[in-house]
Amino acid sequence: MRVGVWLVGARGSVATTVVVGAAAIRSGLMPPVGCVTETPDFAGAELPPLDALVFGGHDIADVPLVKRAEKLARDGVVPPLLPAAVTGELDEAEGEIREGLGGGSDAGTLRERADRLIGDLVSFRDRRELDRVVVINVASTEPPFERRPEHAGLEALERAMAEPGEVLPASSVYAYAALRAGCPYIDFTPSTGARLPALDELARRMGVPYGGSDAKTGETLVKTALAPMFAARALAVRSWSGTNLLGGGDGATLADPAAGESKKVSKDRALSEILDRRVEGQTHIDYVPHMGEWKTAWDHVMFEGFLGVRMTLQFTWQGCDSALAAPLVLDLARLTARAHQAGRFGPLPELGFFFKDPIGSSEHRLTAQYELLRAWAVELGAGA
Amino acid sequence: MRVGVWLVGARGSVATTVVVGAAAIRSGLMPPVGCVTETPDFAGAELPPLDALVFGGHDIADVPLVKRAEKLARDGVVPPLLPAAVTGELDEAEGEIREGLGGGSDAGTLRERADRLIGDLVSFRDRRELDRVVVINVASTEPPFERRPEHAGLEALERAMAEPGEVLPASSVYAYAALRAGCPYIDFTPSTGARLPALDELARRMGVPYGGSDAKTGETLVKTALAPMFAARALAVRSWSGTNLLGGGDGATLADPAAGESKKVSKDRALSEILDRRVEGQTHIDYVPHMGEWKTAWDHVMFEGFLGVRMTLQFTWQGCDSALAAPLVLDLARLTARAHQAGRFGPLPELGFFFKDPIGSSEHRLTAQYELLRAWAVELGAGA
Amino acid sequence: MRVGVWLVGARGSVATTVVVGAAAIRSGLMPPVGCVTETPDFAGAELPPLDALVFGGHDIADVPLVKRAEKLARDGVVPPLLPAAVTGELDEAEGEIREGLGGGSDAGTLRERADRLIGDLVSFRDRRELDRVVVINVASTEPPFERRPEHAGLEALERAMAEPGEVLPASSVYAYAALRAGCPYIDFTPSTGARLPALDELARRMGVPYGGSDAKTGETLVKTALAPMFAARALAVRSWSGTNLLGGGDGATLADPAAGESKKVSKDRALSEILDRRVEGQTHIDYVPHMGEWKTAWDHVMFEGFLGVRMTLQFTWQGCDSALAAPLVLDLARLTARAHQAGRFGPLPELGFFFKDPIGSSEHRLTAQYELLRAWAVELGAGA
Amino acid sequence: MRVGVWLVGARGSVATTVVVGAAAIRSGLMPPVGCVTETPDFAGAELPPLDALVFGGHDIADVPLVKRAEKLARDGVVPPLLPAAVTGELDEAEGEIREGLGGGSDAGTLRERADRLIGDLVSFRDRRELDRVVVINVASTEPPFERRPEHAGLEALERAMAEPGEVLPASSVYAYAALRAGCPYIDFTPSTGARLPALDELARRMGVPYGGSDAKTGETLVKTALAPMFAARALAVRSWSGTNLLGGGDGATLADPAAGESKKVSKDRALSEILDRRVEGQTHIDYVPHMGEWKTAWDHVMFEGFLGVRMTLQFTWQGCDSALAAPLVLDLARLTARAHQAGRFGPLPELGFFFKDPIGSSEHRLTAQYELLRAWAVELGAGA
Repeated sequence: MRVGVWLVGARGSVATTVVVGAAAIRSGLMPPVGCVTETPDFAGAELPPLDALVFGGHDIADVPLVKRAEKLARDGVVPPLLPAAVTGELDEAEGEIREGLGGGSDAGTLRERADRLIGDLVSFRDRRELDRVVVINVASTEPPFERRPEHAGLEALERAMAEPGEVLPASSVYAYAALRAGCPYIDFTPSTGARLPALDELARRMGVPYGGSDAKTGETLVKTALAPMFAARALAVRSWSGTNLLGGGDGATLADPAAGESKKVSKDRALSEILDRRVEGQTHIDYVPHMGEWKTAWDHVMFEGFLGVRMTLQFTWQGCDSALAAPLVLDLARLTARAHQAGRFGPLPELGFFFKDPIGSSEHRLTAQYELLRAWAVELGAGA
Repeated sequence: MRVGVWLVGARGSVATTVVVGAAAIRSGLMPPVGCVTETPDFAGAELPPLDALVFGGHDIADVPLVKRAEKLARDGVVPPLLPAAVTGELDEAEGEIREGLGGGSDAGTLRERADRLIGDLVSFRDRRELDRVVVINVASTEPPFERRPEHAGLEALERAMAEPGEVLPASSVYAYAALRAGCPYIDFTPSTGARLPALDELARRMGVPYGGSDAKTGETLVKTALAPMFAARALAVRSWSGTNLLGGGDGATLADPAAGESKKVSKDRALSEILDRRVEGQTHIDYVPHMGEWKTAWDHVMFEGFLGVRMTLQFTWQGCDSALAAPLVLDLARLTARAHQAGRFGPLPELGFFFKDPIGSSEHRLTAQYELLRAWAVELGAGA
Repeated sequence: MRVGVWLVGARGSVATTVVVGAAAIRSGLMPPVGCVTETPDFAGAELPPLDALVFGGHDIADVPLVKRAEKLARDGVVPPLLPAAVTGELDEAEGEIREGLGGGSDAGTLRERADRLIGDLVSFRDRRELDRVVVINVASTEPPFERRPEHAGLEALERAMAEPGEVLPASSVYAYAALRAGCPYIDFTPSTGARLPALDELARRMGVPYGGSDAKTGETLVKTALAPMFAARALAVRSWSGTNLLGGGDGATLADPAAGESKKVSKDRALSEILDRRVEGQTHIDYVPHMGEWKTAWDHVMFEGFLGVRMTLQFTWQGCDSALAAPLVLDLARLTARAHQAGRFGPLPELGFFFKDPIGSSEHRLTAQYELLRAWAVELGAGA
Repeated sequence: MRVGVWLVGARGSVATTVVVGAAAIRSGLMPPVGCVTETPDFAGAELPPLDALVFGGHDIADVPLVKRAEKLARDGVVPPLLPAAVTGELDEAEGEIREGLGGGSDAGTLRERADRLIGDLVSFRDRRELDRVVVINVASTEPPFERRPEHAGLEALERAMAEPGEVLPASSVYAYAALRAGCPYIDFTPSTGARLPALDELARRMGVPYGGSDAKTGETLVKTALAPMFAARALAVRSWSGTNLLGGGDGATLADPAAGESKKVSKDRALSEILDRRVEGQTHIDYVPHMGEWKTAWDHVMFEGFLGVRMTLQFTWQGCDSALAAPLVLDLARLTARAHQAGRFGPLPELGFFFKDPIGSSEHRLTAQYELLRAWAVELGAGA
C-alpha cells in the first residue's frame, strides 16, 4: 500500500518536522521516538510502513521546505545536521506543494475553489500511483465560525457553495475537497474542518473516514493523564487553573482572543468530563514571541481530601510544539489509511487518544483512550 | 457483618485521623472524600459499611487519642471543632488500645510476645462480638531486616521464635500474631510485615488473606499516573529525579538512612517497571521538622521526543500525609474483610492500587491497578 | 505618644488580622514576626510602640470583629485559640467602628458625607485622647476612576464636592476627610485615594503626610527582589509572565476586569523600571473562590545569557494575603505617625519599600527601597 | 595594557566558551550579554578592553578547542555557526595550551612540577608581550584536601614541596605557581587553590592579588538575591531545601560525595550568614548525565509570617552552566588585572559578588555585593 499524506499548511513548522523526521527515521538516522504506531502494541495492525508514505500539501507561504528546515535546526527543533542529510526528501515534498486557499488563486465561488483543491488531490494520487491519500490539517487555528442552516445537509451546502459568499471557513473547504475526492480527512487543529452534519453526510456517502480534532500535545495531555487519578482516589478537585505560554506561529494565532477561545473550549471540556462536574479555574493562552517553537504550561490544582484538608498539585510542562505534534501526524496518517483500507467510514472515535476534542467520543481519560486505540489496532490486524 | 480494625500504631497521626474521620463520616458531619470504597464503582461489592467498623490497636505511645486529635486539629489535619464532636468514638477506641511491642511488657521469647498480641486480638474479637478483625500496620517504618534461613518455612520460624533472640522484626511479629489468630493482615508501611515465605505459609494454612505494602499517597501516586503517559506516547524518559520533604514522625524515621532506603527501593521499582527500563535520577527523602504533618514532593522528568528534542515535565505535590493515608486505611479494612468473608486467603494482588510495592503483582500503572480493583469489586459483589 | 489607627474597611480580613495580631503581640502571646519596625534596624527610630496603638475605623459590613476573627481562625489565618484570648481588644475596636461610605447614611453631597467622616475621626481622636490618628485604607480595590478637571486644585474640588454628583471615588473621599481632619493617610490598595493634585494640595496645606499605594505582599515583592539580580548580572530578560490565583474578597473584586486592571498596571510598572525596558509577558489575576484567604502566584522568566543561550527561572509563591498585609499595616501606622510628629508633610517616598506603586518614587528595587527606609529610620531617630 | 588570561582547565566547557565568546563579542558577532563589566556602571573603571585579552592555559585533556567548540554548538551552548566563525582565535588559544598537572610530565617533587608551570606562565607573558597574566582556575572541583601544618607558613611549605610527597592539592600548586610568577590568581571553583596562609603570605610578598572562590551561577545566585527579602520583611524562614541536577563534567565530579561536600559547604554558608541563623533543610547535588551542559535547581522555602502562618516560596532555575560561567571569567580577568595594575595585593573581597564563598568577606547578599563592586569600580576609575 502506497499512502499519500497531504498536509494543509505544508510549509509550517509541524509539516516540515514531519517530512524531515519521516526521512530521518526511514534512513535510520534517528530512532522513531514519539511515534506511537512504531511501538510493539501496533506491530500487528498491518499499518502502512513509514516507507510507504509520500508527502505533499497545500500552503500559501512560499519559504521553501529546505529553508524552513534549516530554521528549525537553528531553533533546536531538529538536529543541526539533519536538514542537509534529507534534502532529497525535502525537495521531493517541495515538488508536491500546491497553492492553498487565501492565496492569489482564490477567485470564484467556494465550489470552484474546492474543485481546484480536489484537482490537486486527484492529480497527486494519480501521478504518484497512491492507493489512497490522507489529508491532515496542520494549518493555523481559525477563529470559531458560526453555524449556518446550510451546514445541516449536503445538498443545501453544495447549493450555497455554488453561490458567491463564504458559507464555510477554509478548514471546512479543505475537508469538503478531501472527502469529495475520496480522501480521509483529519483535523489536527480545533478549526471547524469536517465537524458539520453536511460533511459527515458527505463522508458517509463517499465511504471515507474522518477524525479529529485538536491534537493533545501538552497541557491537556498531562491533564487527561492526571485527572483520572483524582477521580480514582475520590479526591475532590476544587480548582484547576492553567497558563500556557506559546511562541511561534501558533502562539500568534491563539493570541487573537477569538481563535484562543476555540482552543480553550476544547481544553476545558476534557476536565469536566473526567471529573464529572465543572471545577473553578481559568485557562490562559499567552503569546510570548521570544518562546519561539517552545511552549510552557503551568497548571495548579487545588483539591480536598479526607475531612476537607486542602492540598495542591502543580505541574510545569516545557515542550517543543512541532516535535510533539509531528510524530502524531505520522501515526494518524498510518492509522487512518489503514481504517480506510479496512472499509471504515464516518468518524473514527478510536483516534480519541490523539485529540483534545475527540470526534464521536466523550472519553477523555488518556489511559482509557489508549486502551481503545490498542484494541482497535488488534482488530485492524485481525481483519487484514 | 461487624468488623474490627486493629491498628498497629494506634496512637499515631494516621490511626487517630482514621478514628476521627470514620466517626465524622458516620455521623454525617463530613462527606467521605478520599474514600475509594464510597464511590459508585464499589456500591455493589457488599462491603461492610463504615458503621460496622470497630477500632482498637497496639501502641507504646501513651498520649491519649483525644489529645492527639486535638493536636491534629491545631496542625490543620482535621477541622478545629471535630475532635470535640467525636470524643465518644475516640474514648471507645482508646479503651481498645493495648501495649505494643517495644514497651515494658516485652519480656520472654518472640513466641511469648506474639502470644500476648494474639491474646489481645482474640479478646477484642470476642468481647466486641466481631465477625472478623483486620490488622493494619500503620506504625513507623522499620529499617530493612536481613533475611534469615528460618524465614523460609513456618516450622523453622516457630522453632526459632521459641528460642531467645530476634529472628523477626516487630512488624513481622505483629503479622505472625494476626495470621495465627486468624486475622487478615495489611502492611501499610514498607516494613517486612507478612512478606516472608514462612508467614505466607501461615496465612494459607490459617485461610486468611494478607496484603501490602507501603501505601502510595503522594509522589509515587502521581508518578504511577504520569509514567504511563510517556510510555503510551512513545516518549523516551531519560531521567526522573525526585525530592521529598517530610516532617512529622514519618519524616524523622525516614531520615535514618536505613529506613529511608526501604522507602526508596519501593518508590523506584514502580518507575522501572512501567517504563520497562532503568532511568537516571535519584530520589531523596529529607526530614524537615518544620513541615509538621505536611509533605512536599518535587519531581523533574527529562524526556526526549521526536528527533531527540529534550523536554521537561516537573510537578510539585503538597499534601497532608495523614489525610491522604487515613481514607485508604478504611478502604483496605473494608475490602480485606470482604475478601476474608468471601474465602480468599494468601496475598491479595487486587489491592495493588493502594501500594507502592504491591504484594503479588508487578502492575504499577495506576489506571490499570484501578481497573483490576474495580473488576474485583464486581466479582466480590457477584459472589456475595 | 498615643496613636489612633483608623482602618477604612475595618471589618475586613486584613483589618481583623491587624487588631488580633497587635493584641497577641502586645500580650506576648505571639512574637512580632513580619513586623519590619520590630527589627533592630528600627530600634532607634523613636517609633510609637505597638502598645500605643488604638484601633477604630469605617466599614459597612456588619459582621462583628469577633465573628470575623473566628472565621479567620477556621481558615487558618490566625491560630485557633487566639480570637478567644483577645476578645477584650476586639470588643474595644468594635466599639470604634463607624458606618462607612456606601451604607445607609450616604445622603447629601460628597462634602456632607466627608463631613460625617471627619466628625468620626475627630471624635475618635478626642474621646480616646490620641496625639494623632493615621488613616489607612484597607478596603476592597476600586475600579479605576477617570481623572476630572476638578481634581487639579483644592478649591475647584471642594466646590464640586458641595454640589450633587460623584466627583471623587470613595477612596478619595476618605483621603479628603483624613487630610482635612489633620490625619495622615495611607493607601494600602491601588485605589485612587490621595493621589490627586487637589488632595496633595490639601495635605501640604494641613501639614500632614500621606503615602501609598498598593502594598506589595506577594508576586511583586518577589519580582522586585529578583529583577535586580538579572540587571546586576547583565542577563537579558526577554519575557516575564505571571498568573495570580486569589480567593477571598480581594479576589472577587479583582476578578472584575476594571479593578484587576488597576492592580496589573501597578504590578507591571516595577518590572520595566528595574529592567529599564518593557519585556514581553502578561500578568493574569484569576478569582478562584476555593482559594479562600490564600493566594498563589506563578511567574515564568525567560532570559538570555552569554551568546544568546536561553534560560528560565520560575517561582511559585503561596501566601496568606491577610497575614502578609497585617504586619505592614502596623509598620505603616508607626512610621507615618512618627513622620507626622517629626513635621513631615506631603508624600512619603521613603515608604516605597511597602508598595507596588510608591508615591513620589520611581525606585522599585526591593533592597534599594529597604536601604532608603533604613536610612530614614536613622534620620527619624536622630531628629527626635 | 595587554592582559593574558591563563585558564587552568583550558580545554573544558567553560574555558572553550570563554574563548569562543570573547572572539564573538570582539568581532561584533554577538552582544556582550552576561558580561557585568560591559555595563555602564563599569565604563569608568579603566578596565582592560576585551580586545586586550590573550588566552592560554593548562590542561591534560587533548581534544582540540575547535572540536570542543563544535560539540558545545551541538549541545546548544554556543550558536551553531559560531565556532566556524572564530577558528582563528580558537587556533591562537590552542597554541598557548600547555600540559597541566596530572599528565605525563608529572615527575619530580611538587616544587619541580610548580617550576614547570611557572616556566609556562613566564614564557607566555614574555613571548606575547603581556603586561600581566591573570590565572583563573576553571578545572573540575577537587575533593576537600586536609589542612597540614606546612600550610601555615611559606617557608615550611616550600620546604615540604621540595621533598617527595603531595603536601598540596593540584589547585594549590597552580595557585603557588601563579603567585610565585607574579600573576594574580582567581579560584572559580571551591577547590583549595590560594586559600592557605602560606599562599596568602606568598601573594603579599609578591605583591599580587588573588580572589575566589566558587563562582555563583545558579541556585546560590538566586538564593542570595531572595534571602535578603525574607530578612528585610522580618519573615521567619524555617526551612530551605534544594536539589541540583547537573550533567556534564562538573556533575560527574560533584557526584563524588567528597567533592560534592566542598560545594555544599560553600552553598550553605551564604544562607545562614544572610538569615543570621541556621535553617533546616538539605542541599542535594545529583549527577544526571542526560542533562548534558544544563543544570536545574529546585528550591523550597518554608517561612512563617504574622501570627505563625506558614507560607512557601519555590523556585526552579534552569540554566546552562558554561554560558553562566564564561562571562564572569571575562569580568574577573579584567577586574583582577586592573586591581593588579592599581597596586592591590592579597585577597580581593570586592569580588564577592561573583562567588559563593567570597575570600575576605562575609557579605553574601547579592545586592550589597553588587554595591561594593560598583563602588570599587568607581575607585579604580578615580585612581587610574
